[in-house]
Amino acid sequence: MIRVAIIGASGYTGAESIEILLRHGEAKLTYLSALPEECGKVGDMFGRFKGRCEMDVVPLDLNKLADLADVALCCLPHKVSMGFVPKMLDAGVKVVDFSADYRLKDVAVYEKFYGVKHTDTANLAKAAFGLPELFREKIKGANLVANPGCFPTGAILALAPLLKEGLIEPDVIVNAVTGASGAGKNPSAKFHFPNMNENLFGYGIGTHRHMPEMEQIATDVAGKPVTVLFQPHAGPFDCGILSTVYCKPKSKLLNEQLAKLYMDFYGKEPFVQVCAGSPSVKDVAGTNYCHVFAAIVKGAVVCFSAIDNLIKGASGQAVQNMNIIFGLDETMGLK
Amino acid sequence: MIRVAIIGASGYTGAESIEILLRHGEAKLTYLSALPEECGKVGDMFGRFKGRCEMDVVPLDLNKLADLADVALCCLPHKVSMGFVPKMLDAGVKVVDFSADYRLKDVAVYEKFYGVKHTDTANLAKAAFGLPELFREKIKGANLVANPGCFPTGAILALAPLLKEGLIEPDVIVNAVTGASGAGKNPSAKFHFPNMNENLFGYGIGTHRHMPEMEQIATDVAGKPVTVLFQPHAGPFDCGILSTVYCKPKSKLLNEQLAKLYMDFYGKEPFVQVCAGSPSVKDVAGTNYCHVFAAIVKGAVVCFSAIDNLIKGASGQAVQNMNIIFGLDETMGLK
Amino acid sequence: MIRVAIIGASGYTGAESIEILLRHGEAKLTYLSALPEECGKVGDMFGRFKGRCEMDVVPLDLNKLADLADVALCCLPHKVSMGFVPKMLDAGVKVVDFSADYRLKDVAVYEKFYGVKHTDTANLAKAAFGLPELFREKIKGANLVANPGCFPTGAILALAPLLKEGLIEPDVIVNAVTGASGAGKNPSAKFHFPNMNENLFGYGIGTHRHMPEMEQIATDVAGKPVTVLFQPHAGPFDCGILSTVYCKPKSKLLNEQLAKLYMDFYGKEPFVQVCAGSPSVKDVAGTNYCHVFAAIVKGAVVCFSAIDNLIKGASGQAVQNMNIIFGLDETMGLK
Amino acid sequence: MIRVAIIGASGYTGAESIEILLRHGEAKLTYLSALPEECGKVGDMFGRFKGRCEMDVVPLDLNKLADLADVALCCLPHKVSMGFVPKMLDAGVKVVDFSADYRLKDVAVYEKFYGVKHTDTANLAKAAFGLPELFREKIKGANLVANPGCFPTGAILALAPLLKEGLIEPDVIVNAVTGASGAGKNPSAKFHFPNMNENLFGYGIGTHRHMPEMEQIATDVAGKPVTVLFQPHAGPFDCGILSTVYCKPKSKLLNEQLAKLYMDFYGKEPFVQVCAGSPSVKDVAGTNYCHVFAAIVKGAVVCFSAIDNLIKGASGQAVQNMNIIFGLDETMGLK
Repeated sequence: MIRVAIIGASGYTGAESIEILLRHGEAKLTYLSALPEECGKVGDMFGRFKGRCEMDVVPLDLNKLADLADVALCCLPHKVSMGFVPKMLDAGVKVVDFSADYRLKDVAVYEKFYGVKHTDTANLAKAAFGLPELFREKIKGANLVANPGCFPTGAILALAPLLKEGLIEPDVIVNAVTGASGAGKNPSAKFHFPNMNENLFGYGIGTHRHMPEMEQIATDVAGKPVTVLFQPHAGPFDCGILSTVYCKPKSKLLNEQLAKLYMDFYGKEPFVQVCAGSPSVKDVAGTNYCHVFAAIVKGAVVCFSAIDNLIKGASGQAVQNMNIIFGLDETMGLK
Repeated sequence: MIRVAIIGASGYTGAESIEILLRHGEAKLTYLSALPEECGKVGDMFGRFKGRCEMDVVPLDLNKLADLADVALCCLPHKVSMGFVPKMLDAGVKVVDFSADYRLKDVAVYEKFYGVKHTDTANLAKAAFGLPELFREKIKGANLVANPGCFPTGAILALAPLLKEGLIEPDVIVNAVTGASGAGKNPSAKFHFPNMNENLFGYGIGTHRHMPEMEQIATDVAGKPVTVLFQPHAGPFDCGILSTVYCKPKSKLLNEQLAKLYMDFYGKEPFVQVCAGSPSVKDVAGTNYCHVFAAIVKGAVVCFSAIDNLIKGASGQAVQNMNIIFGLDETMGLK
Repeated sequence: MIRVAIIGASGYTGAESIEILLRHGEAKLTYLSALPEECGKVGDMFGRFKGRCEMDVVPLDLNKLADLADVALCCLPHKVSMGFVPKMLDAGVKVVDFSADYRLKDVAVYEKFYGVKHTDTANLAKAAFGLPELFREKIKGANLVANPGCFPTGAILALAPLLKEGLIEPDVIVNAVTGASGAGKNPSAKFHFPNMNENLFGYGIGTHRHMPEMEQIATDVAGKPVTVLFQPHAGPFDCGILSTVYCKPKSKLLNEQLAKLYMDFYGKEPFVQVCAGSPSVKDVAGTNYCHVFAAIVKGAVVCFSAIDNLIKGASGQAVQNMNIIFGLDETMGLK
Repeated sequence: MIRVAIIGASGYTGAESIEILLRHGEAKLTYLSALPEECGKVGDMFGRFKGRCEMDVVPLDLNKLADLADVALCCLPHKVSMGFVPKMLDAGVKVVDFSADYRLKDVAVYEKFYGVKHTDTANLAKAAFGLPELFREKIKGANLVANPGCFPTGAILALAPLLKEGLIEPDVIVNAVTGASGAGKNPSAKFHFPNMNENLFGYGIGTHRHMPEMEQIATDVAGKPVTVLFQPHAGPFDCGILSTVYCKPKSKLLNEQLAKLYMDFYGKEPFVQVCAGSPSVKDVAGTNYCHVFAAIVKGAVVCFSAIDNLIKGASGQAVQNMNIIFGLDETMGLK
């Protein structure tokens, strides 16, 4: 039985990680930590855990963590995470990190987009990028996995077959709409119910930090530089991301070829389903699945993907990575 | 042309008042004020006013108010309002006050439920209670009208014919569900979209301040003491209140008698419609209408009403009161 | 491993039953049936099962059912169910029936409210009422369990401690709001998104079929006749029922006594949690839990309960009953 | 006082037209018609009109129409409309037609996308395209105005300044999300509340009929052929369309140039507001306004627009067109 700690258990990705681990047959929660002012009983923080999880969330104590856990799901924010991850690794605890701190291999890009100096470049160099459908082998032996961002997960899974096979021009547009849980648990004017309900808007125009992350992975998959124009939007629903990706084929492609390409690429993947039309956010909400579809429109390829931003886009993928690290059935707790 | 000021224009009831007055043929907005830190262009505060209302919201200046306005819709919070209303009245400006400060005639009850000493009992004694369907004549000559609470408006309109005719026992239960705009514009954990969406809960159990207000009006209408057990709930929609009221008839009543009673009572009211079944919140949302229905179930009377909490429950009713004060067609701006 | 069939797998309660059984460690789905025109792959009917459940839904064949299943979760509609249940029982398959056909012990009441003659009174007499918190012992030995209605489950769990201890007058009011999934999967004008969204309304005024069911169980629990005035409403959310129940204590009760009463009554129940304030629908949505709370308001008792109408109000409770019938841990698949 | 008929008054655009005309100072509703099986009192069809509009909706009688109305807002479906419009025109009634029947100037394109032969090419040739911001002069003298589709209205208003000034490559991508009212009032599985709520999906992939309409107008505005790749989506809200448009500038453009371009182009338009960031659907819902914004991202131009699909995208724009036809203040009834 793998012993799992959640660091930063008081936020939405922490809660979703607890939810998944309550149903995991070969891993169990042994330690939950958060900032001192956010500690207490899990059931008091999130009413849905009343009677289902009787654990206390406590301030982080690295010695206790090392005693109690084999692996930490680290749900700390960007910039904060890199202050703790090296200590956890040093204490002999494997880490799946949810922040962006170990995703961007190019330190200059990280420092530009996150506005701080990277303080743990040694571990950054060693971290595996935790998108199992593309980097499963590297995850297997890793002590540190950088869990991908929610938008990059959706966008790259929509595009990967085309990138991998070199079938498209290296210049893509990613239009995505996320549910409101993507903004986290802290109340704000934008996500105040009477403002967000019945609403839809774009944000992060030209500046969203998932743009360089998408470019890095897309480039990695394609084997040559790919440019990504990424435009996120927020919509009036709790969970899910629908990505609509526009790209140009290098030479004429038919819908049948696209269907075969995606089926060949994803046919054996446990968590990717190739659909016969646009995926729907509601079909993947509450699951670790990604639904994809691609079609030719006016000579372009339009690719769709739907994921749950908190599960395949965060906590579910983290458990999937954890399962791979420890050689468990990759789908444990997630089917 | 009546000149109208809105004091406290930066909140939801202020915005809804602006909305209504933009369409009012015989009144015009001349002055908008708010706390200094909430001032600025209306279109910047509420995007829906861009291009529709180019006014600035400014800090309150009583001299300017007196120069510019015949009447003030005072949307200040409870306890704050009574500090300003006497000054506006002294400056010769009529006031429709949205707060509870001039609603509860029994000062002891006010002080118990609002936890402060009442500082303007002189005007309290003179204020008309602004529920036109019941107190139209008193509103006509008033300089100060206390605009009713949203829940009392819905509950009393559902019950008034039965109370007035003395047909029920003086002991009623009011179960109501309000949309989330009832909580106001300030972000909070409860009304954070990912918490409020897909949710429904009770609150203010035994303590809601609209309970004594309902009792006062019900008692007034019935001509003898009426006890009200009021339980509010909040639901995942923007606007509206559905009230379901349970009471006992003194003697056997038939559905046909109820239908006739309500039609007789409300047949000439411009803003109350008697329905043939449960009203629906969506049918009244965005309007100043109240839809009512009553039926006998197991010997009890179950009465329903639906209103828009921000319109018939606040800003619309305030304009209706203003129209009455100034002798205008009561429906101006509200049809 | 218990082999489970779902009869009527194409509706919402069928789908929710599949969802639960996919995670059940000691039971497995072996047979799914529906009307011929609704058959096909589960993943085509409900996109969320793509890749998660590869079974076909087929027209019912009683011989195959008998070969393949130890128990049937029978999700057929009222009036239809009693035509099939006796055949399943005769074939040696235990049945948890979701319809009302085996709930109302008084055949005359059934025939009045459902408008048809009861055709299987023999099994009706033997059926256990599947509310485990109250009738666990009777469920243990049963071949046929009548799974309770969603509203009665919520209402009775809110009231049971008071009824059982004889603390209240036998005359209660149940005000409940259900999510829209309660109306089933067939499109209708009322539940068309642009009509139901941002809406809330009452329905079934004085006529809802769950009223006599509540009275029967309440009477059974109290040991003497109880009258229930039940008023349902529908609100703009997918899943959940919030019940607000009003009753009169026989003699003075304090909030502390209520709290102790509920804790004593439910303290050992795996799926009932006693809260410190109004429960919230969202805290129980997606779970088999019921959250309850009771308080004194103006001398009356106001009791609240929240459940997921499709889980504790249907499929979850059915699996809970199935677990009890077969002597499994009652919480298997449901935690 | 202009006398207005609504033909096809029983659908959503009919209802929205009634709503607007109830507040129009210089036009009044005189005739409402619908299919015989959809006739009756307006307040029974749409509860929100109870007490606000006491008219009957009757089967169409062209003689009565000619007697009673100066202009018809024709809300009939595509293909049906062209059977009635010539008769209304012959009867001396001006027509603003909501269908696609008079929008596509190229009959072959119409016949390809709508699958029927065009039966009124004579009037098609004379019809003005009712997008006032671009074709106001042609609308002024028209007897027949083809009211634009909702998606083309949003997309073209987002793009028009760039097209008109020849600043972009003639190859654009329009990604749009509409609220569920866009699907009309007939219940369907996709728009059944429990399916549509919390959902978001693409549809009409490569086949949506608004694609050729966008191309025709874009080409007209640009003065040379423009290709549009249009991908619509549906989201869980009632009203509104957010369009996100991607295009390539012919030469380098700066954000300041874009801001000036849009302000110059739209500065005097009563219903278009240039925003300082992404528009929000909720800011325009319930209004005839279009909010636009454009920015440079990675060398491309990303343009946004938000409209209410039933108002600026249908009924509001129709009344705007009607105002222009009759020489009224263009904003009557719409501010």
